[in-house]
Amino acid sequence: MKAENMGTIKIVDTTLRDGSHAMSHQFNEEMISKIVKGLDEANVYAIEVSHGDGMGGSSLQYGFSLLSDSEMLEVAKPNIEQSRLAILLLPGIGTRDDLKIAAEHGVRMARIATHCTEADISEQHIGLAKNLGMEVACFLMMAHMVSPEKLLEQALLMQSYGADVVYIVDSAGALLPSGVKERVKKLCEGLKIQVGFHGHNNLGLAIANSLVAVDSGASYIDGTLRGLGAGSGNAQIEVLVAVFEKSGYSSGVNFYSIMDTAEKVLEPFMKRPQVIKNDSLMLGYAGVYSSFLLHTLRAAQKYQLDPRDIIVEIGKQKIVGGQEDIIINVAYDLYKKMNKK
Amino acid sequence: MKAENMGTIKIVDTTLRDGSHAMSHQFNEEMISKIVKGLDEANVYAIEVSHGDGMGGSSLQYGFSLLSDSEMLEVAKPNIEQSRLAILLLPGIGTRDDLKIAAEHGVRMARIATHCTEADISEQHIGLAKNLGMEVACFLMMAHMVSPEKLLEQALLMQSYGADVVYIVDSAGALLPSGVKERVKKLCEGLKIQVGFHGHNNLGLAIANSLVAVDSGASYIDGTLRGLGAGSGNAQIEVLVAVFEKSGYSSGVNFYSIMDTAEKVLEPFMKRPQVIKNDSLMLGYAGVYSSFLLHTLRAAQKYQLDPRDIIVEIGKQKIVGGQEDIIINVAYDLYKKMNKK
Repeated sequence: MKAENMGTIKIVDTTLRDGSHAMSHQFNEEMISKIVKGLDEANVYAIEVSHGDGMGGSSLQYGFSLLSDSEMLEVAKPNIEQSRLAILLLPGIGTRDDLKIAAEHGVRMARIATHCTEADISEQHIGLAKNLGMEVACFLMMAHMVSPEKLLEQALLMQSYGADVVYIVDSAGALLPSGVKERVKKLCEGLKIQVGFHGHNNLGLAIANSLVAVDSGASYIDGTLRGLGAGSGNAQIEVLVAVFEKSGYSSGVNFYSIMDTAEKVLEPFMKRPQVIKNDSLMLGYAGVYSSFLLHTLRAAQKYQLDPRDIIVEIGKQKIVGGQEDIIINVAYDLYKKMNKK
Repeated sequence: MKAENMGTIKIVDTTLRDGSHAMSHQFNEEMISKIVKGLDEANVYAIEVSHGDGMGGSSLQYGFSLLSDSEMLEVAKPNIEQSRLAILLLPGIGTRDDLKIAAEHGVRMARIATHCTEADISEQHIGLAKNLGMEVACFLMMAHMVSPEKLLEQALLMQSYGADVVYIVDSAGALLPSGVKERVKKLCEGLKIQVGFHGHNNLGLAIANSLVAVDSGASYIDGTLRGLGAGSGNAQIEVLVAVFEKSGYSSGVNFYSIMDTAEKVLEPFMKRPQVIKNDSLMLGYAGVYSSFLLHTLRAAQKYQLDPRDIIVEIGKQKIVGGQEDIIINVAYDLYKKMNKK
């Protein structure tokens, strides 16, 4: 059992899904059609189009998108000639019906994402996506929080459910290159299926981590045009293409064409430049998911603390999404500890 | 003979020197005093203050700076309590008199820079700086252009002239982590003095390359607040501090304090965000120095070529600074070749 990348990389663009966070989920028809057309011409392997939190994410909790998932896919489809259309689905946010809708819209790749310790909730969705004839890539999110061994255990579950690829997803941009290397190697050694990597740039390491992932055996790599994404953003896809080409890996993506799409198509639509500010840097440093930021700022104000101290503490306690209520307790404990000194 | 980093890194800030390119060399007194104060409080090892092209750079050719080197150093000095004040000097642009001026202004570290094959022009400057009691760090610029062996040969010259440190300077942001590793290892094995690394972010690798450099034995690392610098900029210093701390290296720099200096002091002065655009990406991809860009655009227009093809060709032919006139010939040859097909 050994997964290998064969020297060829499948580059997946997620500008119109993960990048959506940086656009407050307000991609319109013009943006979607132009971006998809540019990406398809550049010949990326797959183009992911969904609400930032996956199909079904448009809601009060995650933010309403301008267009529904169906509408976005409908706009995207006719602009594709060679790439495959992909969607993201988080079981619990999206449903099996969403997968059927995706299939009806010509989606050929389903990406099913769970927290890195909860692969077991993806079984039915993986099965259905396979039955619908789609390639299935599975995400183990916040992958820095668990050991390579635990990650492999979870990836093996996804493999047993029928996944074609398992991604190590560095949701908080918290992995160092050494951490990426050991995780990718572990999965490549233990799986029969392919391994992918999805990086974020909180520590300025998204490109290097993607390169380390490929050097270690990964074959699916995610990026976004200009690095568009929440906080400090994703791996900048045109930079990925340059670095892979310079490193001797072939991806089939046209370098000039993806650069043009980034600069001439995406950039004019951007609301703000994709840089590393202190908030994102702290999240990467502490290994904390971005949805905790607002709660942290509130708790810091209440107890007159430096929000950075709270973020470090949340990271240490390995608090996960859904446990946002605990933040106020963390802040209170920190406040007591500091006033004791 | 073996240089080692002992696990402690000396972080040198060059916001007020290399960052000056991104400010068209227009740093004023308020900016200099506030930035120096913030960097000193954060306890960086050294603070470099000079024209972007080093002392004596203020000219029609390199761009006039708002304040002279003397004036900048005079403003900087009283704001320093713990860091050491540094200057950059390129023999040929700066003179030995500039070194004396620097010493008079309390500069404790001279950084003497040459092209990676021209170490021999630095002998007198290194000698004088040592005689003036300064720590001397030497730069081998455009270090991607030569082999590790050639680089060591040049570094040995600088060591023999009295240098305390030799830096591998990735001026074009063209080195991959593997290229940094082999160069740093070679120098660490062959030198008795310390090794440094100065990265640029054209390929999104400035942070990772700095980490690889330290992992390979380098002990002096350069960065700038928010990555301020020409094109895609330098290694972002507050991100460097985070990554080194997370990797278990100590630098003595206060993480919160350097973050605050980046966001509250430097950022409001910035003219544009520090991102990777296509021009800079191409320069890093091809390994070409940024001063060639304007000439390339002109030549491309003249012969109706894609400037990217010219940049790739300049990189292949290893044309160096001072040979800008050759660009028009490169373009003409490319034009002939393309119209033959």
